[in-house]
Amino acid sequence: MATMGKGRLEAFSDGVIAIIITIMVLEIKVPHGEDFAALQPLLPVFLSYVLSFIYVGIYWNNHHHLLHAAKNVSGGALWANLHLLFWLSLIPFVTGWMGENHWQPLPVALYGFVLLMAGLAYYMLVRVLLRIHSADSALAKALGKDVKGRLSLVFYALAIALAYVHVGLAIGLYACVAAMWLIPDRRIERHLQESQG
Amino acid sequence: MATMGKGRLEAFSDGVIAIIITIMVLEIKVPHGEDFAALQPLLPVFLSYVLSFIYVGIYWNNHHHLLHAAKNVSGGALWANLHLLFWLSLIPFVTGWMGENHWQPLPVALYGFVLLMAGLAYYMLVRVLLRIHSADSALAKALGKDVKGRLSLVFYALAIALAYVHVGLAIGLYACVAAMWLIPDRRIERHLQESQG
Amino acid sequence: MATMGKGRLEAFSDGVIAIIITIMVLEIKVPHGEDFAALQPLLPVFLSYVLSFIYVGIYWNNHHHLLHAAKNVSGGALWANLHLLFWLSLIPFVTGWMGENHWQPLPVALYGFVLLMAGLAYYMLVRVLLRIHSADSALAKALGKDVKGRLSLVFYALAIALAYVHVGLAIGLYACVAAMWLIPDRRIERHLQESQG
Amino acid sequence: MATMGKGRLEAFSDGVIAIIITIMVLEIKVPHGEDFAALQPLLPVFLSYVLSFIYVGIYWNNHHHLLHAAKNVSGGALWANLHLLFWLSLIPFVTGWMGENHWQPLPVALYGFVLLMAGLAYYMLVRVLLRIHSADSALAKALGKDVKGRLSLVFYALAIALAYVHVGLAIGLYACVAAMWLIPDRRIERHLQESQG
Repeated sequence: MATMGKGRLEAFSDGVIAIIITIMVLEIKVPHGEDFAALQPLLPVFLSYVLSFIYVGIYWNNHHHLLHAAKNVSGGALWANLHLLFWLSLIPFVTGWMGENHWQPLPVALYGFVLLMAGLAYYMLVRVLLRIHSADSALAKALGKDVKGRLSLVFYALAIALAYVHVGLAIGLYACVAAMWLIPDRRIERHLQESQG
Repeated sequence: MATMGKGRLEAFSDGVIAIIITIMVLEIKVPHGEDFAALQPLLPVFLSYVLSFIYVGIYWNNHHHLLHAAKNVSGGALWANLHLLFWLSLIPFVTGWMGENHWQPLPVALYGFVLLMAGLAYYMLVRVLLRIHSADSALAKALGKDVKGRLSLVFYALAIALAYVHVGLAIGLYACVAAMWLIPDRRIERHLQESQG
Repeated sequence: MATMGKGRLEAFSDGVIAIIITIMVLEIKVPHGEDFAALQPLLPVFLSYVLSFIYVGIYWNNHHHLLHAAKNVSGGALWANLHLLFWLSLIPFVTGWMGENHWQPLPVALYGFVLLMAGLAYYMLVRVLLRIHSADSALAKALGKDVKGRLSLVFYALAIALAYVHVGLAIGLYACVAAMWLIPDRRIERHLQESQG
Repeated sequence: MATMGKGRLEAFSDGVIAIIITIMVLEIKVPHGEDFAALQPLLPVFLSYVLSFIYVGIYWNNHHHLLHAAKNVSGGALWANLHLLFWLSLIPFVTGWMGENHWQPLPVALYGFVLLMAGLAYYMLVRVLLRIHSADSALAKALGKDVKGRLSLVFYALAIALAYVHVGLAIGLYACVAAMWLIPDRRIERHLQESQG
């Protein structure tokens, strides 16, 4: 299978993710009032923004580590990557909808659905990359069993169902998954270090 | 004819294409309602977004392969590239117009017109690049007869006319062209592989 | 005087210019109607967009050539560059205002004012870069007397005054300056070629 | 502690900062009128834009110098950097709010609060980077005691309190801090020069 350099895939993904993470802030509309009362209705919008900023940040971070460990990419990887970017590009929309409706069940569930699809897309990108790397490559070793990735998908699915029971539970799960990923880099970093050492 | 490094042309194009593909999502306005009924009018907007995301993704992909195979660029290529980016930059507008009007003839035809012009601009960029590459360069070999590129232009023109007969036919053609391109990379990839092998 | 690598200055400028050239399209608001009558009021907005797209494209092109010929940058060049980007960042605003008001005198004059300031800022950037390059550097040779740059400033100033006589004259002048720059690269390209040859 | 190349962190930060500095201009809404009276209410919005453009420019500049002096980054640095980008991403919002309300106390104080948090985030990023560099590295030497960084934080805190006494004082302080940073690069530049010389 033909392989290619990964430079432009990284550059393009950086561009798209940078735009996604930044245009979300446009959903926090400037209020007309000038006191705390004017800011108050923005609180759920702001908290949704914080959550999504962390999520997109996690994706950028993991994407960075994944491509760093990869030696090269294939035509299939370009499309798997675009597929991932597609789902990430919907995050500003679902964030805005969830925030503006003060966390109603359907928007909260749809938020989880987009996270779930992005998680699946990331998983597919990993598979495509593993196919063009040997089993003893830095990439394969660094990824290992990817327990965290699989667990996240289960949690998203659970949260979608729980959104109709109590939105607080769903959002709590989203926060848990985010927290779980906030310290993920060690695994790949350690392997890279060992393989360099 | 003077030639230049291609790094910044790639970087700038990546930036513009990344922004185009991402700001389209801003056309999916956050609805005020919180149930499925609120989402329903967004369906044509969303489907238009998906179609355009794939198209812009195809352009990025092909652009990536084209510049990858090119050795260098000329001043004319910079302008041919800006011309291509101009037509691509109109895709968010025609996507939004087509989606918001639930696929009426004129917006659907205008969508095809912008695709046609982008296709012509891409063709012109290819010509300009071929002029500064020899007939036995990787670029020339990789492009070959470019049957797909020519066929796309015919299909776009056909779709513009058909939009006034039945919009479904036009959109079907747009989807066909997209599908035709979704597996395009093999050609150039194979040649690159062979020339490296 | 301390000098630095130019890579990140190029990357950042590419990013900002890519965003400027692309967000202008957001000023072409999606109309609610679905026929030619709905598009008609957009014509001046669209033509203003085309003019500004060409101008920003010219700036990117010249910036590309300028930095290509430069060996390195200084802290002062970073700020001179940000100053240029500031005036360029106002182009979407003046483009939108000029287009939406169907070319009234004040918006047309303000458009020229922003072009004039951007032109001056570019001139200042050139001066700052020349200070850290020797008189026989590729940069100094490539720039020569910069007749075109000086002429543009005169034309912008003239157009601002003429906007109050007849807006058509002012816009004609803007188009003339753009046309004058559309084939500018030869000069630097030739010098680079000679210095490489 | 594992360290990584810094290329993509620079590229991603460039992307996000480029978008932040550019989308702020979208807050300057195109007025419907066509005379000076239509522009007048935009004056505070425009001046707020200028101030924020300078601030974001300063951050990009300092970030550029900081990463230039750094040899490599760690997983912690990626997150410290995202944390900085988070606060910077709120600048368009507070700029718009401050400008639209013609500098009322709360928006002016909130503007200072975001600057304060961004300043703290920058300070944390510096700490994280220093941890993976030796005491005699170019980075450690270039940063020195960072009196300016600490002073800025004090000034921001002061300005937040003063916003309720007189907004003019607070804005004056913001302008002072900006002026203080506009000529900051010499310090790091000189050290880099010496270490190269």
